[in-house]
Formats: sequence, C-alpha cells, structure tokens
Amino acid sequence: MADHGFTVCAFNRTVSKVDAFLANEAKGKSIVGAHSTEEFVSKLKKPRRVMLLVQAGKAVDDWIETLLPLLERGDIIIDGGNSHFPDSNRRTKYLASKGLRFVGSGVSGGEEGARYGPSIMPGGDETAWPYIKDIFQSISAKSGGEACCEWVGDEGAGHYVKMVHNGIEYGDMQLICEAYDIMKRGLGLTNKEIGDVLAKWNKGVLDSFLIEITRDIMYFNDDDGTALVEKILDKAGQKGTGKWTAVNALDLGMPVTLIAEAVLARCLSGIKEERAKASTKLEFVGRASTFEGDKEQFLEDLEQALYASKIISYAQGFMLMQEAAKEYNWKLNKPSIALMWRGGCIIRSVFLKDITAAYRKNPDLENLLFDEFFNKAIHKAQPGWRDVVAKTALLGIPSPAFSTALSWFDGYRTKDLPANLLQAQRDYFGAHTFRIKPEAANDKYPVGKDIHVNWTGRGGNVSASTYQA
Amino acid sequence: MADHGFTVCAFNRTVSKVDAFLANEAKGKSIVGAHSTEEFVSKLKKPRRVMLLVQAGKAVDDWIETLLPLLERGDIIIDGGNSHFPDSNRRTKYLASKGLRFVGSGVSGGEEGARYGPSIMPGGDETAWPYIKDIFQSISAKSGGEACCEWVGDEGAGHYVKMVHNGIEYGDMQLICEAYDIMKRGLGLTNKEIGDVLAKWNKGVLDSFLIEITRDIMYFNDDDGTALVEKILDKAGQKGTGKWTAVNALDLGMPVTLIAEAVLARCLSGIKEERAKASTKLEFVGRASTFEGDKEQFLEDLEQALYASKIISYAQGFMLMQEAAKEYNWKLNKPSIALMWRGGCIIRSVFLKDITAAYRKNPDLENLLFDEFFNKAIHKAQPGWRDVVAKTALLGIPSPAFSTALSWFDGYRTKDLPANLLQAQRDYFGAHTFRIKPEAANDKYPVGKDIHVNWTGRGGNVSASTYQA
Repeated sequence: MADHGFTVCAFNRTVSKVDAFLANEAKGKSIVGAHSTEEFVSKLKKPRRVMLLVQAGKAVDDWIETLLPLLERGDIIIDGGNSHFPDSNRRTKYLASKGLRFVGSGVSGGEEGARYGPSIMPGGDETAWPYIKDIFQSISAKSGGEACCEWVGDEGAGHYVKMVHNGIEYGDMQLICEAYDIMKRGLGLTNKEIGDVLAKWNKGVLDSFLIEITRDIMYFNDDDGTALVEKILDKAGQKGTGKWTAVNALDLGMPVTLIAEAVLARCLSGIKEERAKASTKLEFVGRASTFEGDKEQFLEDLEQALYASKIISYAQGFMLMQEAAKEYNWKLNKPSIALMWRGGCIIRSVFLKDITAAYRKNPDLENLLFDEFFNKAIHKAQPGWRDVVAKTALLGIPSPAFSTALSWFDGYRTKDLPANLLQAQRDYFGAHTFRIKPEAANDKYPVGKDIHVNWTGRGGNVSASTYQA
Repeated sequence: MADHGFTVCAFNRTVSKVDAFLANEAKGKSIVGAHSTEEFVSKLKKPRRVMLLVQAGKAVDDWIETLLPLLERGDIIIDGGNSHFPDSNRRTKYLASKGLRFVGSGVSGGEEGARYGPSIMPGGDETAWPYIKDIFQSISAKSGGEACCEWVGDEGAGHYVKMVHNGIEYGDMQLICEAYDIMKRGLGLTNKEIGDVLAKWNKGVLDSFLIEITRDIMYFNDDDGTALVEKILDKAGQKGTGKWTAVNALDLGMPVTLIAEAVLARCLSGIKEERAKASTKLEFVGRASTFEGDKEQFLEDLEQALYASKIISYAQGFMLMQEAAKEYNWKLNKPSIALMWRGGCIIRSVFLKDITAAYRKNPDLENLLFDEFFNKAIHKAQPGWRDVVAKTALLGIPSPAFSTALSWFDGYRTKDLPANLLQAQRDYFGAHTFRIKPEAANDKYPVGKDIHVNWTGRGGNVSASTYQA
C-alpha cells in the first residue's frame, strides 16, 4: 500500500517486530508504526480502515473483540486472511449489529504476488467498498490494464470465491503432477526433457504461472547436478481450503469431482509409509506394460488431456459458485471473478483471459462448456484426452484427475444416465419411490408423481419417503 | 421383537396409530400399547429399555427431553434411526451426565430386512449392552448361525459404522449402474440379456443382494412388456449418509475416493435438465466409437472390473473406520463389522464372508489388499479391469467409480507418487517448505527438516509455514 502512495500505520502484538519493520523494510516509506492498539486506532483517518493479516480462525475473532471498543460507527475491519466463508458471513452480521462494517477479502499470490501485486477478492458489507476500492485496486495485480480486484458480493462471498480459487489451484496442481508422472514413468522422459515439454506448453493454451514454475522446477538441479524435485518427499498435506471446497460441493450437491479427487490424491500421498509397504505386495498385471506408439503424438494428446481436464475443472468451479450464489442469496459477478484470477494469483493464466471473455460476452452463460470457444476446445481435445486416460489405465499409472474429468464430461453430456437403475434399486429395497421420465409418462405413471412398485410381489404398499438410503 | 418372544410396549405420538397397530399387525402377539409417554414408561421393566424409531435430528433430541424426567438412573434409551454419529457422541455424554445410558444403533435391511431380520450395529454406553444383547441378537439377521449384530464401540461408533455401511452401499450401487450402462450402451445388450449376465454373476464372486435385485429389475416389465427401469427418471438424490461418509473421509484426510465419486455421480444425475441441454451441445469425438472385440471376454472383464472396484471400495471403507477408531479413540471390532454386514443389510454378500474371514484370520490386518485371498483376487482381476476402464474412456461411457478405483489402486501400490512435484510447487510459490526423501538425505537436507529453497533467486529466505495453499 505504501508503495502505491498510501500512508499506512503498522501494528503487531509483538512490539519489537513493529520497530524492526520501521527500521528496515518500512524505512523511507509512508509507513508509521504503533506500539499499542489504542495508538494504532488513534492514528487512523475516519472512517478507519483496519486490515487484519492474522491466522484464520480464533485470532480474527480475538482481534475483532480487541478493536471493537476502540472503533466508532462506520469504521471498517478487513480480514485479509484465508478465513472460512461461514465465519465471514457471521462476522459481517456481527459487526453490522455493532454499527461497524466488515470486509472479508481473499488474497492470492503466494510469496511474490502478495508483495508485488496479488489478486484480491473482497466481499462483505458493500458500503465499505467505496472507502477501500482505490487502495485495493491500486495494489492488486493488473491484467490488460484492469485491476485484478473487484467487489465480489455480500457477506463471506469474497472468502468463498477465494476458497474455490484454492480448490481450483489444487486441481491444476494435481493435473500437472499427473502429466509429469505420465511423462516420467510412462514415457521415460528425463527431468530436462519434461522441462522442455513444459516450456513448449507454456507457449500454447496451457500458458500459466503453474506450468512456468513447474518448468523451472524440472530444470532446477541440486549441487550434485540432478533434479532436486526427485529428492523431495512425495507427501502432501491437505487440511485447508481445498478440502473446504470439496465439502461445500457435497453440501450443495454439486458434482465438483476434479477438486475432490485432487484433495483425495493429497490424502493418498499422505499415507506414504503404507504405500511403500503396498508397493511390495501389489504388482502391476496387465495385457500391456510399456508404452507403445508415437511419443510425439502422445505428448500432444497429453497437452490436450491437461487442457480439457482444466476446462472441466473450471466449468465445475463456476457451477459451484453459481449454485452458492443461489443458495446463499449472493450476487456474484462472474466476469469479474475470472478477471480477478487472471493476474496476481497462483492460477493466473492465459486460459483465464478466455474465461473472462466468455462471461463478458454472456454473463448468464449457464456453463463454460456452452461458450463457443470452450465448446470448440473441448471437442478438439477429446480424442487425445481419451487416449491418455485409456493408456494410463492400461499402463498402471494413476490419473485420478484426468480420469474423473473425462468421466464427468461423458456423464454431463449424457441425457439418460444409469441413475434410473439406482432409483429402481432404492424403491426395490427401501420403498423409496421413483419418478417417471416425461417421455414415458401415462395415466398410470404421471410426471412428478412419487411412484412405488411392488417389485417382488412380497413387499407392502407402504412407501418409505423418510428412508435414507 | 415380539416375533422372537419378547414382550413389547408400543407408543406413538399419534395415539390412533397405536390403536390401529394393536388392532391389526400386533393382534395376537406379545405387544401391549400405551396412550401416553407416562403410561408407556410405567409399563416397562427396569432398567427400562426405550427404543426410538423416529427421524434423525431434532425429533431424537425432543424425545430424549420428553423421556428424561420420566426415566430413572440406569435406564436405557436406544436410538435406532439414521442419526449422524457426532449427535450420538453428544447424546451418549449428555445422558451419562443424567445417570442414563444411551445406545445409538445403526439398523440396515430396507423394507424386508427391517421386518425379517436386519443388520444391527449398536454403540454407545457399553454397560447397556448386556441388557439388550439377547433381544438384538435374536431379532437380527443370521449368517452361518451367527447373529449379524455385535457391540460396535463407544459413543457414536454404531452410527458411524452404519454411516460407512451406507457410503459403501452408495458405491456398490454406482458400480452396478456403471456396469449396466456399459452393457446397455457399450455392448448394446437388451434388459433381458443384462438380467441374464447378472444372474450368472450372482452365482460367482459378485453373489449379493444388490446384484440379485438388479437382475430382478432387469427382468421386471411394465404392462406394455418393456422393462420398467428404462422409464424411470435418472435423477437420484443425495443428502444423507453417503455424503456424511465422504465429508468425514475428507475431515480425516483418508482417500476414500470411490464413495466420494458415487455421491458426486448422484449429484451429476441430479442436474438432469442441464444434462439434457448439454447432450445437444457436446458430442462424442474419439478415434473409435463402437465396441470392437470379443463380447464374452469383455463381459468377463466387466465382472472382474466390478469385483476389483468393490474390493477397493471396501478396502477404503475399512481404512476409514480404522482411522476413525484412532481419531475418536474407539475400539472397533473389524471382524464383527464384516460379520454384521454379512446378512440382513443392503450390502449383504458372499464377498463379506471373505472379508470376515480375512479379519478373523488377522484382526490387525493393515489393509484388506494385504490379505492373501484379496491380494490374489485383485491381481487376477487387473487385466480385465484395466481394459474396461480404457474401453469406457475410448467409447465415451462414463465410469467414474471404476476409473477412480483403478487410479487409486495404481496410486496406492506406488511408492513414489508425483506429490514431490506438488511440494516443490508449494515451496516455489508459497515458501511452504518440503521434506527430503530418506534415501536422498544428507547433511544439507536431513530427514524431517522443513526445507525452503530459493527456486528463482528472487524470493526471500522466509518460509511461510502458515500459508495455506
């Protein structure tokens, strides 16, 4: 903020940190310090704008309670941490009841982005927006001259969108990991060769921050001249926002399969010791065991598989946000969301320019796959995508995210899924009733009626609508 | 209970239902009725055993509050509904604080099982068990002379195991739906032909209640002589125990992918209208579009794919229960759980006899796949399973459960997953640190140390251990 001409007052519970900051990073900048919350609050212009950058959870609530008696009607508290959106819903209401304004703002950019221009996703009390808009849009990343920061929506909408962003980040990372594994174990490429492939991909439809850093990682050698990445323990954590996205999707009944698989893939990576044991007990058996065919063609297929799977993941993510807006009664600005993710954040990519364009062209677009550009792209990608999924299955290389994306696509484009059988089963064993397809309806089975059939000739006539299968 | 020689007192809020029950179903049996809660409680032998069969949630708490003033120290309240296990944890503690004993008991069997012998999974206050054991084990289903009812564990352990049972039920049903879809759309079989395949499968390793009823459903014709199942709307609900299982797996960080995909497949079925629209906009594109090869061989492969995927699903389910026992500090009796599911319930099968045997042979078995029987089975099934997953990908038929099972298997048996790259990425963009593989450790990178590398030459030296990717 100081870098962009705003005067900032800094405070930290540990007062020595404030002094160290003033004497070093803040030196010569428009930054003043405070040694107590009282001093801090007294130095702010009214309406006061207090931005918390503390750990999500209890610390945020504690700081709110500390600040409450010191603030005045109309003052603004901004939570810039990775808070869970229901907490931001609650805090917006709580502060409103005290005459204060709450803003829950997602911030993404990692180490560099947070310092040099992150993506910022603010939501909460919209009357606060005019007081922070200039600051936030000045410090945020820019894409094509536009700020990667817009007002997202009511209550926890900002943190919600950040949560979905992170879920999508989980998905993007998992997809790249699968591509790397397929190139490494399936095709036998060296890290250098994989880096070269990624460098090429980074000039095409996959051009993105994550592909770029993965290229760098492939080229990054340890002192002994071998790739450092191969020495890193393959055990990833997951307890945060990726999991929240998957749980929220389940709560809203939305089929966000790719993020769910990405989170669960991290869980599987987490049980490394059991996997090591399993690797000695479970062998590959198959009708083919080594890659056969044209490697160059397969690498093109792999690029298309990654691209198609990514399209599916973003389509799912936007479906989820759309459903959340309905469920929580938020107005979400879809073109702005795509734009906010366009620059500054971890998932920034050329791809998001196309998504922004799609939603700008039609803000009511029902599904990303219905947009002309993505519709064409997914049709073009299909043959290669199918071959990659098939080959990984045959060769024994795990591809949970590629596979779930393809299965979802094939399910999504299917008018009649086999869930008719599922409904029949539930009615058979639990008298759970079913409905009839409109095209098969008649007087006996009208549309919209809950029907129970005596499948066995032994069951009763009572339907159990409260039975939970 | 009355059918097994126990005298039962029946009560319902709607007193006319009690009278109707006494005059009809209960006539001539050892059943008495009550017209008020006071009368009901006064008619029970001490310690009183009150079994609630009401809708999960608030109704259970309301009944507990109604009963509390009427009961005495040592009396037992049994909740036989589909309660969520954290509620049963809470109720066990609450009733204990009042000097009463709570039992939360899962009951599965559907319409017939609940009447003719269900699977019963009780947990809670173990001191209650001697007072209800005879009754429960008498009324429960039997398998090979053994009751499909045993004490499960503390607090909500009974409802927990029932929850996982239902999650597995979701998985089993989804797998059968995928097999049906593949036979119908992939091979072009008629419902009668699919019924015949299922009839054959029901004599082999897949012998189970769900295969049996699916066979019946395939043969069940509507008045016009065509299969009724084809007229049923393919839109399945999911708000219950399947979702709880998936959410709990995410909470515990366990890779229970098959149940998660089964729940999400129901979600996808739920957006039927959008799918219908998508079916007009998204076409199949691939290098092959019709099944080629030996149908008989493929049907054998399909049987193996279903069997293998089922093994994975149960392995995941038992991993989850194992982790829950650790997390919640419960003692879970794995051989008993398998036995309880062996008969009476929806997932009853010959397969569960083999699981019972595996855990009886080795109650500390770390994973079902390490048991000799299942180890052999999964190795035998692999080639066909791989071909089925590959063919569905190539032909455009969704197989989310088959595919995730195979990807999970291939991940589980892999010592070095690509999560090393994921950890490198997180350290690159978020200074999130990584650890070193033991075999690559040295003085610079010792085992167990959180390492941060300056990947770009531009980043700082500060690692952000609180950054949540």
